[in-house]
Amino acid sequence: MSTTTSHSDVKTEYVIRQLGRTTNKKYEAYIITRIIHKLDNFDIKFVTQQYVSRSDEKHALTDLFFPQLNFHIEVDEGFHKNHWNVKADDIREQDIAMAVPGTIFKRIDATMTLDQINIRVDALVDELRKEIIKLTSNSTYIPWDIDAEHNPETYLEKGYIDLEDNVAFKRIYEACNCFGHQYIGFQRGGAGHRDDGTILWFPKLYPNDEWNNSISQNEEQIVEKHHVPETAKIHVAEHINGSSIKRIVFARVKNNLGEIMYRFKGCYKLNVPESKSRNALIWDRIETRVKTYRPTAI
Amino acid sequence: MSTTTSHSDVKTEYVIRQLGRTTNKKYEAYIITRIIHKLDNFDIKFVTQQYVSRSDEKHALTDLFFPQLNFHIEVDEGFHKNHWNVKADDIREQDIAMAVPGTIFKRIDATMTLDQINIRVDALVDELRKEIIKLTSNSTYIPWDIDAEHNPETYLEKGYIDLEDNVAFKRIYEACNCFGHQYIGFQRGGAGHRDDGTILWFPKLYPNDEWNNSISQNEEQIVEKHHVPETAKIHVAEHINGSSIKRIVFARVKNNLGEIMYRFKGCYKLNVPESKSRNALIWDRIETRVKTYRPTAI
Repeated sequence: MSTTTSHSDVKTEYVIRQLGRTTNKKYEAYIITRIIHKLDNFDIKFVTQQYVSRSDEKHALTDLFFPQLNFHIEVDEGFHKNHWNVKADDIREQDIAMAVPGTIFKRIDATMTLDQINIRVDALVDELRKEIIKLTSNSTYIPWDIDAEHNPETYLEKGYIDLEDNVAFKRIYEACNCFGHQYIGFQRGGAGHRDDGTILWFPKLYPNDEWNNSISQNEEQIVEKHHVPETAKIHVAEHINGSSIKRIVFARVKNNLGEIMYRFKGCYKLNVPESKSRNALIWDRIETRVKTYRPTAI
Repeated sequence: MSTTTSHSDVKTEYVIRQLGRTTNKKYEAYIITRIIHKLDNFDIKFVTQQYVSRSDEKHALTDLFFPQLNFHIEVDEGFHKNHWNVKADDIREQDIAMAVPGTIFKRIDATMTLDQINIRVDALVDELRKEIIKLTSNSTYIPWDIDAEHNPETYLEKGYIDLEDNVAFKRIYEACNCFGHQYIGFQRGGAGHRDDGTILWFPKLYPNDEWNNSISQNEEQIVEKHHVPETAKIHVAEHINGSSIKRIVFARVKNNLGEIMYRFKGCYKLNVPESKSRNALIWDRIETRVKTYRPTAI
């Protein structure tokens, strides 16, 4: 199933880098490249070595992930570390995929012979093809376009950004420009929104120099707290009496190639009672989809 | 074209190691794995990063080699070193394939886009399939059997060892056992043969601690000379008057995975006049095929 779509240099580079990463697992490269070459469909995005989180479960590292299909594949070499036993501390800066309901997890036993591995891979490729048929028969299906996926225009055209679409930008200004801004560069941690009381926020959702931030495993609650208790107190006091009570969150993460990205997490609202009682700002997710808009004519 | 032949654990390991080797060229892994997975025929042996020599030309390093097909593929990333400009000194210990007449050399330009690369790879795979059809229609065709290819029994059964068949053993005793021996271990540099005047020889055909040996680029002549001139003189004198005038040569080489192997080079005969005039033993190849034989009953 070779596609006739034309793929950009950026996509070429992406595919090469994803497949060229070396790992400790010697069968992994064989299996992953076989899946990709046999599937032979570069309209479907893939990510190698993807961290993933299931609500109330541990984090995992899967070897191959197809975001549009919510399909994860783990190569199991038997003697290696349990995929589902990744320590949260080791991955706090990483881009983590949420396992939405219906996410498919498949394993492939790499301790088999070449023939058995090939048969298993080919069966997996058939499963992927079935999922692709389901995906592409959906009217909202868009082929993987690596240039468009990081381009604000894509989301302005669409009218919204949804958690389902796995949206991440490489630059803060690209996210800003989905909300009426026309930046060509921007490095601050927040930006304005046309709705009073809403701001765009680009936080590190893990303990860092100044902040002891965190996000819950199901990503429905963010805790924002200054390391210094006195400063934290002032910070909380300022915000619970302030007007800025909603935040559209693009969390600063590292993708699997080590690049910084700003990953859309949803719109969060300040939980005032809990913030008071915990002496930290507690943000609860209220929307998984936010509207985008172009600059207002003056 | 998935084969139904059963492949051994040894072959599994071989394939994985060949495809898992990292190189400096980032497009290479993508292209090589695509060729192998698309071809999907593990009855056909392949070697990655194979040194090759053409008579009167420079040595080359090709990225993918199919010995049964005499088919080499070079991945050309443009800015990298010329494939046909490998220094002989850098590869003196290496296993070097001879480019026999009819050997096919194909290049693939890795500076193209993903689509162009895929189209080019798929065309190459079609060419390989045509060569495989030619090969397998030949009555002497044997599917790649990695266990058999290093097993003396294979060549005892066949009745001969031929240069065309790319024969190499991992142990000296395996080569010996193709000629009436029943060793289970053997580490000397030579062994007897049923024909008086012929011995089995396992030399390093490059300058080493004691010997300043060499083999010509076309492999038709071997020079064996001791480093110390006085010793060389005695050595030559002993041999030109001796009865041992033929040698079946298995040269000690390193394969591309760094393993020591003993590669069959043919049967060579001492050239007495030239040995006298050059004060070195000069061995000229007289046969590219030698008969194998089982132990004689006592």
